[in-house]
Amino acid sequence: MSDAPKKVVLAYSGGLDTSIILKWLQTEYGCEVITFTADLGQGEELEPARAKAELLGINPENIHIVDVREEFVRDFVFPMFRANAVYEGLYLLGTSIARPLISKHLVEIAHQHGADAVAHGATGKGNDQVRFELSALALDPSIRVIAPWREWNLNSRTSLIEFAEQNQIPIAKNKRGEAPFSVDANLLHTSSEGTVLEDPAVEAPDYVAQRIVAVEDAPNEPEFIEVTFERGDAVAINGEALSPATILTRLNEIGGKHGVGLLDFVENRFVGMKSRGVYETPGGTILLEAHRGIEQITLDSGAGHLKDSIMPRYAELIYNGFWFSPEREALQALIDKTQEHVTGTVKLKLYKGSVRTVARWSDHSLYSEKHVTFEDDAGAYDQKDAAGFIRLNALRLKLIAARNARVK
Amino acid sequence: MSDAPKKVVLAYSGGLDTSIILKWLQTEYGCEVITFTADLGQGEELEPARAKAELLGINPENIHIVDVREEFVRDFVFPMFRANAVYEGLYLLGTSIARPLISKHLVEIAHQHGADAVAHGATGKGNDQVRFELSALALDPSIRVIAPWREWNLNSRTSLIEFAEQNQIPIAKNKRGEAPFSVDANLLHTSSEGTVLEDPAVEAPDYVAQRIVAVEDAPNEPEFIEVTFERGDAVAINGEALSPATILTRLNEIGGKHGVGLLDFVENRFVGMKSRGVYETPGGTILLEAHRGIEQITLDSGAGHLKDSIMPRYAELIYNGFWFSPEREALQALIDKTQEHVTGTVKLKLYKGSVRTVARWSDHSLYSEKHVTFEDDAGAYDQKDAAGFIRLNALRLKLIAARNARVK
Amino acid sequence: MSDAPKKVVLAYSGGLDTSIILKWLQTEYGCEVITFTADLGQGEELEPARAKAELLGINPENIHIVDVREEFVRDFVFPMFRANAVYEGLYLLGTSIARPLISKHLVEIAHQHGADAVAHGATGKGNDQVRFELSALALDPSIRVIAPWREWNLNSRTSLIEFAEQNQIPIAKNKRGEAPFSVDANLLHTSSEGTVLEDPAVEAPDYVAQRIVAVEDAPNEPEFIEVTFERGDAVAINGEALSPATILTRLNEIGGKHGVGLLDFVENRFVGMKSRGVYETPGGTILLEAHRGIEQITLDSGAGHLKDSIMPRYAELIYNGFWFSPEREALQALIDKTQEHVTGTVKLKLYKGSVRTVARWSDHSLYSEKHVTFEDDAGAYDQKDAAGFIRLNALRLKLIAARNARVK
Amino acid sequence: MSDAPKKVVLAYSGGLDTSIILKWLQTEYGCEVITFTADLGQGEELEPARAKAELLGINPENIHIVDVREEFVRDFVFPMFRANAVYEGLYLLGTSIARPLISKHLVEIAHQHGADAVAHGATGKGNDQVRFELSALALDPSIRVIAPWREWNLNSRTSLIEFAEQNQIPIAKNKRGEAPFSVDANLLHTSSEGTVLEDPAVEAPDYVAQRIVAVEDAPNEPEFIEVTFERGDAVAINGEALSPATILTRLNEIGGKHGVGLLDFVENRFVGMKSRGVYETPGGTILLEAHRGIEQITLDSGAGHLKDSIMPRYAELIYNGFWFSPEREALQALIDKTQEHVTGTVKLKLYKGSVRTVARWSDHSLYSEKHVTFEDDAGAYDQKDAAGFIRLNALRLKLIAARNARVK
Repeated sequence: MSDAPKKVVLAYSGGLDTSIILKWLQTEYGCEVITFTADLGQGEELEPARAKAELLGINPENIHIVDVREEFVRDFVFPMFRANAVYEGLYLLGTSIARPLISKHLVEIAHQHGADAVAHGATGKGNDQVRFELSALALDPSIRVIAPWREWNLNSRTSLIEFAEQNQIPIAKNKRGEAPFSVDANLLHTSSEGTVLEDPAVEAPDYVAQRIVAVEDAPNEPEFIEVTFERGDAVAINGEALSPATILTRLNEIGGKHGVGLLDFVENRFVGMKSRGVYETPGGTILLEAHRGIEQITLDSGAGHLKDSIMPRYAELIYNGFWFSPEREALQALIDKTQEHVTGTVKLKLYKGSVRTVARWSDHSLYSEKHVTFEDDAGAYDQKDAAGFIRLNALRLKLIAARNARVK
Repeated sequence: MSDAPKKVVLAYSGGLDTSIILKWLQTEYGCEVITFTADLGQGEELEPARAKAELLGINPENIHIVDVREEFVRDFVFPMFRANAVYEGLYLLGTSIARPLISKHLVEIAHQHGADAVAHGATGKGNDQVRFELSALALDPSIRVIAPWREWNLNSRTSLIEFAEQNQIPIAKNKRGEAPFSVDANLLHTSSEGTVLEDPAVEAPDYVAQRIVAVEDAPNEPEFIEVTFERGDAVAINGEALSPATILTRLNEIGGKHGVGLLDFVENRFVGMKSRGVYETPGGTILLEAHRGIEQITLDSGAGHLKDSIMPRYAELIYNGFWFSPEREALQALIDKTQEHVTGTVKLKLYKGSVRTVARWSDHSLYSEKHVTFEDDAGAYDQKDAAGFIRLNALRLKLIAARNARVK
Repeated sequence: MSDAPKKVVLAYSGGLDTSIILKWLQTEYGCEVITFTADLGQGEELEPARAKAELLGINPENIHIVDVREEFVRDFVFPMFRANAVYEGLYLLGTSIARPLISKHLVEIAHQHGADAVAHGATGKGNDQVRFELSALALDPSIRVIAPWREWNLNSRTSLIEFAEQNQIPIAKNKRGEAPFSVDANLLHTSSEGTVLEDPAVEAPDYVAQRIVAVEDAPNEPEFIEVTFERGDAVAINGEALSPATILTRLNEIGGKHGVGLLDFVENRFVGMKSRGVYETPGGTILLEAHRGIEQITLDSGAGHLKDSIMPRYAELIYNGFWFSPEREALQALIDKTQEHVTGTVKLKLYKGSVRTVARWSDHSLYSEKHVTFEDDAGAYDQKDAAGFIRLNALRLKLIAARNARVK
Repeated sequence: MSDAPKKVVLAYSGGLDTSIILKWLQTEYGCEVITFTADLGQGEELEPARAKAELLGINPENIHIVDVREEFVRDFVFPMFRANAVYEGLYLLGTSIARPLISKHLVEIAHQHGADAVAHGATGKGNDQVRFELSALALDPSIRVIAPWREWNLNSRTSLIEFAEQNQIPIAKNKRGEAPFSVDANLLHTSSEGTVLEDPAVEAPDYVAQRIVAVEDAPNEPEFIEVTFERGDAVAINGEALSPATILTRLNEIGGKHGVGLLDFVENRFVGMKSRGVYETPGGTILLEAHRGIEQITLDSGAGHLKDSIMPRYAELIYNGFWFSPEREALQALIDKTQEHVTGTVKLKLYKGSVRTVARWSDHSLYSEKHVTFEDDAGAYDQKDAAGFIRLNALRLKLIAARNARVK
């Protein structure tokens, strides 16, 4: 098959599905496979992935296991949180934001090995295929992307298991039956979808949540924490300076303990249908609330309202897979420009599923007690100015009212 | 004083401040005063306002006490909630949305009595003066609006009390000292601001919250409710059809009991400074969550993302006082057009401060289990289509990447 | 072939390409073909299309030749012009807006005949395939759309001519060679692209323009015309009330004579590449200028700026083929709401390629000479109001400046 | 008058009105006056302003005459043109963009001299007062701004002339009567408004245009020019590298000769009323067309459509006087980010009032003849991809259509 790829870099989790893909690439194309396994904070040991790749015949030099947690939070999660990005009002984009990072590494490893293709394990119905592929092609327009789920005929659980058995791929016992739902996890969130979640009229079973305690089991005492920001990024918790990934890890622990960040959601996929997912984003939910809290005193209305107005477009771009696109980068330039003074500390209260800002302070604050006070303001503000302000704002409305009265 | 107004319709609460205004209008201008007292669901008896107005010499025919609760929810609150409107990410606009309604009635009563002016008790530092006056002038460009707080010299608590004493205005005992904070309430929310809340770095005292129980005191058992929508408006709770104001009243009771809807917030006022407020919006918080829940299955991404993108502008208009403006009305036409199929039921879980959608169903649902399933979809969706979809979406990104490689 | 369509409604121009498609459908699928030929104002006789269809064996009852000019202008062109829609700053969307109309008729005729498919002659590289197919599927989700250019192997001029010769399809002499460029025309515009136009660095030859005289050949005397609008739509020229299609026809004559409306343009196609076209839109260019002129005095800044801000999105939707979509319809509701008072008359000067508004008047005018005059305004406007207006607008800027000075 | 300013920097043109202001400041406040006269390319000798200021008693060290043309074009005009900014569809913001530059210099000179105030000659009805004052206060929140037109009682031509005569201010003969209209000019444009232009239903007299020949008098031969851009800014004309101000000067000459850039316009002022002006922007009109032309081949649709969507907001900010604001700066960051590859050359045709792009080329071009050709594309593009692209774009429309059919 002259058209077959020669060397393929595969996004490899070490699980059953990507092991099957690995073997399928070898058998279908007769190509050399290079594996990339990322520690994105999904909370699983990665060394078993190495062992399994070796077992499947991958040359040790072709096995890449990389801890990308700091890069993930610093270069992807934090820039996104500067925008207060939420998709369709509620979803914090936990899966969406990880995909371009993975593609970036796939392409880099491909260049390093002189590989002509990359491969991923996303299906043809979801958004992830789009995110993987747009990112890879934006970084290397000549790279080939292989999506086995769209190519092969292993379209049932049974045929996958058969293929695994025929190819000596180890199968964990609990993988033989159909999974009750499908999971994706990284440092920002855990998502669950499919099977028992497919009917949005039926409540998600309790066992779906994996990272956040049930609110009923959360502590009976509230916890207060302080998050400090510099130029829009969290840099410390309770006064302790921490790296980006450490901050998100800590916030996950705190949020998870208090039942914060659970979302049951029906969303619009880029590929055209609706899907229902359960998202757990404990640390991200705290981070969003805290970031909004610090912006309240450090960002003025002009920059703030501008950010709010472009946020839905920004979130949509990330959701749809356009992280590496001129328009996302241009929006990021706008957002980053607004964050120059988003520096200060927010105090938050966590309790049984909710997180609320209760206080905030900053050297960069624009809040002026002198101007807002009901008491004597020592001339900071002349109430008579408001009369002129209102009269000129009203002028066009008066002209409209007079016109409408005239022509009706 | 030839320039003095002859007849003034005053937005009169029956409290000390508007009683002082009433008397000041009589003495300053020698004009006839007509009072308008609205039952907006603020939870106070209104008949004492009648007695007090009579005591201050108002002719009984000049006293208007009107229950506007249904009008408020039907014509103002519900249209706004169709947009999922939040100001600066978090504020549900509870005060902002009530002001145009009051102005509308002031102007109507003015026309009825042949009055040449209306008056309100808002200060010269806040947004409410703007909202009252823009609304009044948009409805009658020739009406005069009197804002005594911007005109008189009663600028301290002491001078107000003195004026009251000199003019035989009854003073409740607890009004002699300085209030610890200032309150506005209606069926949608209660807001508190000023004095003990003026420093945003200091947590609000517990006694500020008046309508929502402390989350720690909320029931230890969650409560599940179902809210039914028709064309974007809530029409039933737990299957019981209810009027707009009754629905909001019930949701307030349920939310208040579970500690839902408390917000500590620093916002940007239209007049240019930041202020800090504590907002309690129990029913509105549930309603927003429920409306988002039903839109998840009944609104497609095209209409939904469009709504999201214009929402910040819409909310800003309401906040700034432009309810009666061509641009708010044009945005409303857009929003209402999207709500034609926003019909169905949402199930929500309330527990100690949080409210979450857990299920939703509708005859108008766009959710297609057939399309989204991981299982055999009987040909509803051809995964191979995704390859072409991605390739054409990627085309411009590839051309950009090739160009950038070429010129660098 | 059990999967073959039984009856297909073909968008049939009577030209060589769609005649080949007609025959190909018959031979490839053995299906019954129904033809739809629309008079969109393209300026060609349509009866020859009937004769040719009959010659190709189409049953006379299966031949539909329909004059859709009034529908086109009234229901498609005029609603779009209410928005001042231009794509990428310059293109008046002349091709884009005609496609949904054609699909609407194809689907209606399919329902009338019980046909199971529609077919069009657009290639797989352009936008028109998208516009035809999205429109058809939005109107009938179960209809099948056949795009022969994406299916067959007649991929060169030579193979097309061979197919035509083998199938006794008459070939006009000038069609044997390669056309110097490809043309689409309707009442709104004529577009030319391809071949001699493919290099955007090379000027378009003079012979490309077919509808507009060369500016050098336009009259040496300017012409003045008056266009009257009602609720955003043109209704009269020089005081003479005319139907929508007649108005556009007249404006085309006037504009064409004066060399108005020629555009040489490189645009971004929805399918991902750039293309270069020459567009002639004489009447539309006048109409856009006139509509802007009447809006200048009848629309206030709130509604006007809102319209301006959503226009690019609206134009993009039409360009991309989403005329029949909830988001286009919601935007139309917004736009139409703003046009309620866009009524009045504009005077325009046409001269050698340019059209300019020189005067405008309306009973619905919001222009107030009394307010704007440099002379005594009799108290209409108090200049002192501006001081308060500016001071409150400046307040946040002052707070920012003070903050920035403090922290730097 | 203890409240009186001590030293005032006046924006001084040398004309009658600002000479009266100069004298009024001296007599009203007894303050020291410092004059700032800018060469913005208005085309007038500035040395007479020096002589006149000296005659009015200004200390030579207090007279500042500065050539700011390069700064004006480089730091204000060019950044604005990167955005293709037009206000209300047509106005190129020629006056608006000059005001912040003047305020910047006023504030800098004030700091240099230890002055406590700045003053300008704009009236209380227009936008310029807002632009001057917002800019000054954004740069120095403690500066005082004096607007004599809002303070004094010289509200008729007669009283101004009287004041001038009483104060030995020289009066040019043609200034004794009422001017037929009011003019503002700089390198970007000349604007005329007032008096003979006040009725928008009456055509502007021919003598209003001062900078652009009547189209009828323009050459009978078209002229072709090439404008070269680097990163969004014009850098050369016909291959000759030129400074920013020189480029704009040359384009003004070329455009003026060919009658390009005349606009008769009714606009919405920020202060609430409509006004009518005649704007002449010969070079700017060419520059806008050329910039759009080069963006057509160098900017992709993602960045381009994003820019288009925020442009109206950006233009509104400049028009309203918010050049020095966080939101304008954030938008500028976005715009500038998109210009990194806007490099190349545009060929334009000028003829009797019109300017049109006829060709464009660039090393940074994204145009791919290989992809767009009707001919054999050697596999660059697979037309079959379009089928999948369309099917997935259609999916939600089909689901909507099926839903709507079901519930109706």
